Amino acid sequence: MRAEMLSIGTELLLGQIVDTNASYIAQRLAEAGIPLYFKDTVGDNPARLAQTLRLALSRADLLICTGGMGPTEDDITSAGVAEAFGVPLELREEAKATLEAFFLARGRPMTPNQFKQAMYPVGATLIPNPTGTAQGFILERDGKTAIVLPGPPNEVYPMWRETVAEYLRTRSGMTIVSRTLRFCGIGEGALEEELKAIIHAQDNPTVAPYAKLAEVHIRVTARAADEAEAWRLIDPVVARIRERAGQYLYGVDEETLEEVVGRLLRARGLTLAVAESCTGGLLGGRLTNIPGSSDYFLGGIISYSNAVKEAVLGVPAATLAAHGAVSAETAGAMAEGARRVTGADIGVSVTGVAGPGGGTAEKPVGLAYLGLAVADRPTQAVRLTFWGDRPTIRARCVQEALVRLRTLLLEPTHE
Amino acid sequence: MRAEMLSIGTELLLGQIVDTNASYIAQRLAEAGIPLYFKDTVGDNPARLAQTLRLALSRADLLICTGGMGPTEDDITSAGVAEAFGVPLELREEAKATLEAFFLARGRPMTPNQFKQAMYPVGATLIPNPTGTAQGFILERDGKTAIVLPGPPNEVYPMWRETVAEYLRTRSGMTIVSRTLRFCGIGEGALEEELKAIIHAQDNPTVAPYAKLAEVHIRVTARAADEAEAWRLIDPVVARIRERAGQYLYGVDEETLEEVVGRLLRARGLTLAVAESCTGGLLGGRLTNIPGSSDYFLGGIISYSNAVKEAVLGVPAATLAAHGAVSAETAGAMAEGARRVTGADIGVSVTGVAGPGGGTAEKPVGLAYLGLAVADRPTQAVRLTFWGDRPTIRARCVQEALVRLRTLLLEPTHE
Repeated sequence: MRAEMLSIGTELLLGQIVDTNASYIAQRLAEAGIPLYFKDTVGDNPARLAQTLRLALSRADLLICTGGMGPTEDDITSAGVAEAFGVPLELREEAKATLEAFFLARGRPMTPNQFKQAMYPVGATLIPNPTGTAQGFILERDGKTAIVLPGPPNEVYPMWRETVAEYLRTRSGMTIVSRTLRFCGIGEGALEEELKAIIHAQDNPTVAPYAKLAEVHIRVTARAADEAEAWRLIDPVVARIRERAGQYLYGVDEETLEEVVGRLLRARGLTLAVAESCTGGLLGGRLTNIPGSSDYFLGGIISYSNAVKEAVLGVPAATLAAHGAVSAETAGAMAEGARRVTGADIGVSVTGVAGPGGGTAEKPVGLAYLGLAVADRPTQAVRLTFWGDRPTIRARCVQEALVRLRTLLLEPTHE
Repeated sequence: MRAEMLSIGTELLLGQIVDTNASYIAQRLAEAGIPLYFKDTVGDNPARLAQTLRLALSRADLLICTGGMGPTEDDITSAGVAEAFGVPLELREEAKATLEAFFLARGRPMTPNQFKQAMYPVGATLIPNPTGTAQGFILERDGKTAIVLPGPPNEVYPMWRETVAEYLRTRSGMTIVSRTLRFCGIGEGALEEELKAIIHAQDNPTVAPYAKLAEVHIRVTARAADEAEAWRLIDPVVARIRERAGQYLYGVDEETLEEVVGRLLRARGLTLAVAESCTGGLLGGRLTNIPGSSDYFLGGIISYSNAVKEAVLGVPAATLAAHGAVSAETAGAMAEGARRVTGADIGVSVTGVAGPGGGTAEKPVGLAYLGLAVADRPTQAVRLTFWGDRPTIRARCVQEALVRLRTLLLEPTHE
């Protein structure tokens, strides 16, 4: 079974809304083991919808349509699908009753055009809509299937969960399983070079790299009769990738870097505090993305001004005068200050020139220092140079701080 | 001129990313008066890309492609477009030099596959990429044009603004001018209702609402022979919108709420500090998005743990014991603490239950308090309830803190 997705609505082609249904449905199809090769967007135009439906039926067995199911003139999806499948529309009494009950419950008058929403292709199975007026439908004919849903995501998601998912599970005998391997400290090009032989040798599972901000994901995806068989295909490939590039692998599937750092802190019973200058709180913001981060993250100081660096973090005025706010010395003192002020086991600091202004020949935009202060060992400060605009430089500072924290927490303990 | 948009990347068909480029580009095309009738999404598969390009060239004059321009094997867009236009690829020395400079500047080795990013169709005009490695290109042949851009939105937007917009302007002989009006403190539905008459009366300029997280943008777009004429169309419509809903209007065009708050602080010569609990630094992160924010933002305390609230911000243990960390009393004491510790004129605090865990019947997920401490006046604390998942609740807390700061800073001075 091969799927094609159609999003129907002029508002999409005018850019008035973002098509979040597309990624939701694409994910569900992947999980259901149904390949999706094309996704089309078309406006509220009967001729162009007909053309797109014809094309989709010529190259797929399963059409998933969203949008254009409302009561107005430009809602053309049900009629278009009926025509493409060669069946007429009919009034469905049960849908009409549901509509009437909906309007009655809200004390709103039901305008005549609303009955349009009770017209369905002959032979269609209705899909209940727990959060809106337009029920969807499933239509099967001559080996082709259409699943037709309204446009609003808050209607699509429950309709999918409650009706479509089960229908597809029954229909498809196939499972797709994916494992995402998450790497940091290596670029996409370099990682792909490292894994070239593995990527090329594979057809099932497929191995595909995705570049993210300051990290790279490798997705290994297998198609098989059942989940156990899919894992039998995936596991040895994952093992080979770990062999080649395991030192850069920080997490698996949905695991984020801040989650991994949090898990390591919790496992070692350590607490963390931050001292942030150029990142202004973004590192604390990342760390507290994780529910339950209060178990190990105590907080910290946003020392954006030098006065706060001195007065709150205790960075010596002489250090700031001699080396400046963006220096290894200041970064180290900030990290130590974060520990001292909060009582945390580990203090991490960031200070840098985020730009676009404020750069000098000696301290250009993109220069940053990270400080790491830990009990009973010398404080470290590392010099880094980043590239990009202000948001990118700041996000890379945060990412690199997390990478360094992870490295620190993976070191063998000497206790 | 008729456009068709192609988004290229298997990650889109697996639902791993949401295609936000699509709505950005669709908006720009609508403003430019270029009709867009179809938008296609296809994976990293040369045969299916070729099929889609053929179809698009058969029904449009202008193709806008995004994605698939990286250095890896599955980046197939440049080769696919070259083939569809019947021209070979060639190495562009200037692109190669840019790439080499990029890697040199970052002290990273350049792997051989990177040179793929310097291969372009013969005759292509390169589109500089200020925020990434892959330059885009414009290719014209036999009355058809392709504009080809990489996938990451943070690369697409500046490339569009700086090169593509000007190219389209020259091609069409039409100038498109837009003014975005940014509203906070009012929902999309209510604002649209307020402006209904204005929205419906307009054809040129068009008036379109866009809902954002906790704010609404109204975009007024005119098409005219020159810029002066476009402004003559826009200005009276903007004036009418201001008349109807001016009290919710906080900014214009690219102006963000943190920028407006910063401008007001600077104008009044006041400094600001934060005390953040559930937002963990995100408010400081927002405020320091603005270059030069060190003029008015001193920093603050991320008081994620109660110990830091007590020890660093001086929230009395009795207050925490009696009212809890999420309370008006704690929010007020946190805001005062932020002022005292940093010496800022204004202290703003956030404390709340971001979820998904940690909610109780009395203090459910989404409950938050904002504190505002200003010299010589009573400290305020406001109770707010938000809904959504953890990231949404945290982002709404930050947004609301900025809205309240703006309101405070707009009050007439009593000095």
